[in-house]
Amino acid sequence: MARKVTVAVMGYGVVGSGVCSILADRQAKTSQYAGCDIQLKRILDVKDYPDSIFVNLFTKNFEDILEDAEINVVAECIGGTGVAYKFTKALLEKGKSVVTSNKAMVAAHGCEMLEIAKQNGCHYIFEAAVGGGIPIIRTLRNSYACENINEIFGILNGTTNYMLTKMRYEGTDYNEALEDARKKGYAEADPTDDVEGYDACRKIAILASLAWNRFVDYKDIDVSGISKITAADIAIANATGNVIKLVGRCRMDNDKLYAMVSPVMVREDNPLAGVNESYNSILVNSDNLDNCMFYGRGAGRFPTASAVVSDIVDVASGLSPIYYNWKADETVKVESSDEFYSEFFVYVETDDTVKAEASVKELLRSKAQMIEIQDNELKTGAVAFTTSKMCYRDLKVTLGLLADMAGKVRLCMPAVI
Amino acid sequence: MARKVTVAVMGYGVVGSGVCSILADRQAKTSQYAGCDIQLKRILDVKDYPDSIFVNLFTKNFEDILEDAEINVVAECIGGTGVAYKFTKALLEKGKSVVTSNKAMVAAHGCEMLEIAKQNGCHYIFEAAVGGGIPIIRTLRNSYACENINEIFGILNGTTNYMLTKMRYEGTDYNEALEDARKKGYAEADPTDDVEGYDACRKIAILASLAWNRFVDYKDIDVSGISKITAADIAIANATGNVIKLVGRCRMDNDKLYAMVSPVMVREDNPLAGVNESYNSILVNSDNLDNCMFYGRGAGRFPTASAVVSDIVDVASGLSPIYYNWKADETVKVESSDEFYSEFFVYVETDDTVKAEASVKELLRSKAQMIEIQDNELKTGAVAFTTSKMCYRDLKVTLGLLADMAGKVRLCMPAVI
Repeated sequence: MARKVTVAVMGYGVVGSGVCSILADRQAKTSQYAGCDIQLKRILDVKDYPDSIFVNLFTKNFEDILEDAEINVVAECIGGTGVAYKFTKALLEKGKSVVTSNKAMVAAHGCEMLEIAKQNGCHYIFEAAVGGGIPIIRTLRNSYACENINEIFGILNGTTNYMLTKMRYEGTDYNEALEDARKKGYAEADPTDDVEGYDACRKIAILASLAWNRFVDYKDIDVSGISKITAADIAIANATGNVIKLVGRCRMDNDKLYAMVSPVMVREDNPLAGVNESYNSILVNSDNLDNCMFYGRGAGRFPTASAVVSDIVDVASGLSPIYYNWKADETVKVESSDEFYSEFFVYVETDDTVKAEASVKELLRSKAQMIEIQDNELKTGAVAFTTSKMCYRDLKVTLGLLADMAGKVRLCMPAVI
Repeated sequence: MARKVTVAVMGYGVVGSGVCSILADRQAKTSQYAGCDIQLKRILDVKDYPDSIFVNLFTKNFEDILEDAEINVVAECIGGTGVAYKFTKALLEKGKSVVTSNKAMVAAHGCEMLEIAKQNGCHYIFEAAVGGGIPIIRTLRNSYACENINEIFGILNGTTNYMLTKMRYEGTDYNEALEDARKKGYAEADPTDDVEGYDACRKIAILASLAWNRFVDYKDIDVSGISKITAADIAIANATGNVIKLVGRCRMDNDKLYAMVSPVMVREDNPLAGVNESYNSILVNSDNLDNCMFYGRGAGRFPTASAVVSDIVDVASGLSPIYYNWKADETVKVESSDEFYSEFFVYVETDDTVKAEASVKELLRSKAQMIEIQDNELKTGAVAFTTSKMCYRDLKVTLGLLADMAGKVRLCMPAVI
């Protein structure tokens, strides 16, 4: 145990303070596993923490970390792409490895950071950036190294899943659910990033980049969030044996990449339907392993901090640095979500359910599977069906005709059957 | 790419032939990832395969592998603890790494094999031995290295899960379900190992040994299988919003190890309830990551073979060998399953449901939660409830009193709420 790894943590917020606490509590275990002494030396934060047990480690001066030759691993827990960007870049240029939970940074500047790390022989790794406590990134790297991945989809945002769970089980409307999520500390003052799907979008872009080892720009992905989901939509889901989930998906098909974030109808007996509260879940479909699903805490202090610590331990263990083949100027083209093949759920309001059902069958034939509506009130004024796999562009044409023939298409979204 | 890793596969059955096929199809990918050339050189099998594309690689003589200095990694896909034991031991003694899907071997002789591997500086690894295509073993090793694991439980046997799924959705009885599983190739001619829970028992013993890094002897674990589960039991589960699953569980509590395999009542909205057909699912609860669940194909040619190949690639990558701290003469004591703390599901047949409910409340007070029976026929003659966490020993005393006061305890099993 002569070798020593000296760690600094930048940002003493929810995740950063968790990282410090785990490193301190579990020093024997981390050091034993890594085969070297792992020592926390510095914590960077703008605030004062006079009562912290780490009081002697705090600094407000980034140079204290950058210029300390002893520090070789830094956990970036600042978040965002402002000062965190500047600091991460400077550290990697000095050859110091950086581990992070900062998905905004990885999604926006992952290419650049990996390139700088490569030039300087150090690590830039980010197990905690997707799925919080779910060990998905390391698993994609190791267990999927020799798999051909077809598709990844998952519930990637804890805040919106908490809200949708509440809406489902308690019948609350969107605004109440949001208010409750704020009270519980799941939603931020400005919830846009979560509720509009941008957070899930960054995560699915990172997963796609890992799955096919080429950089996917999250800005190229079509996103729709949950802010338009109403209590009435949830009632329709309940009445048709479904659950609405916000899902990020990406698929490689004939060398074309499809990706999108949107609300999805998940059939009640699908394992994804049972992913409740702030839990996340990621399903990977690949040629030999078929479907694997990884489920766990998508956020939260200790799950995320544990993932950051596992990266610190990986670096300390002397694992060879991993440089993905991402290039900022060679991003993969993302096809329009209109071209995304999926099953779809459609709910049509109509005065004449017999005629509407006949119209569905005439237009879609064997592609449509009617669903029984298990709610007497809804039943009299609507029909519901799922389609077999088709692209949204084709479905839209059909739905236009259906509206003319049978009634108002009240709800249409991708389905997971 | 000067370095070269030369592989032999022993046993050309379902898994072994899958391993050969993946190694051949994906040579570029495996070699690139491992950073060295991975070459399949020999296949050992007692049968002839004149039409195989690998026809030139077959041998019936183990010495052709053992004495070939070029072969440094061997995939043992023979199964069982007979000839596979002799061969594995001889190979490790020669310093050749062995990777395997053979859970019977790992559960019975894992200690010895790891010890021999350690003495000879080679690997003995077994990602495919538990959960087939679910990357659970590597994940426990890496992502859980610095976690304190509290409990693991899971659906670990695909055959029984297939049967229970069929019984649930189609109302078939046990014998029909077994017959169907045989036809589909899920159940063997002698299904004892699967249906009596012995297979799940070996797997939970391996997971427990990994979780707490001390060897757990599967023979010390109380096991009950599904052969006594009737269509009537399934109807009770359906009527109370539950699903019966065969679950292996282990828990470390105050330095005491509890482990058991038994049918369990899982509430419909728990993610485990949605694990259907031959899928497996493993839930790990640990202090920082809280609950994580890993779901996938628990068996089958390609999922299992892919896991074996991932181990070959790990060895080829130059990963340092992992030697768990297992000692055959220092196994952990497993507490009696009577001491296992769990929620329980209880179903009591009675002529007087009002009196029975009163008796339950008198005996268990706030520890019992009545469940509505959603079946008019069952409803009139029974009450059902779940208990909060208690040990089975205490529950048995209560159930004895309850039988005297209220009616016949028709069904009692651990519950997952």
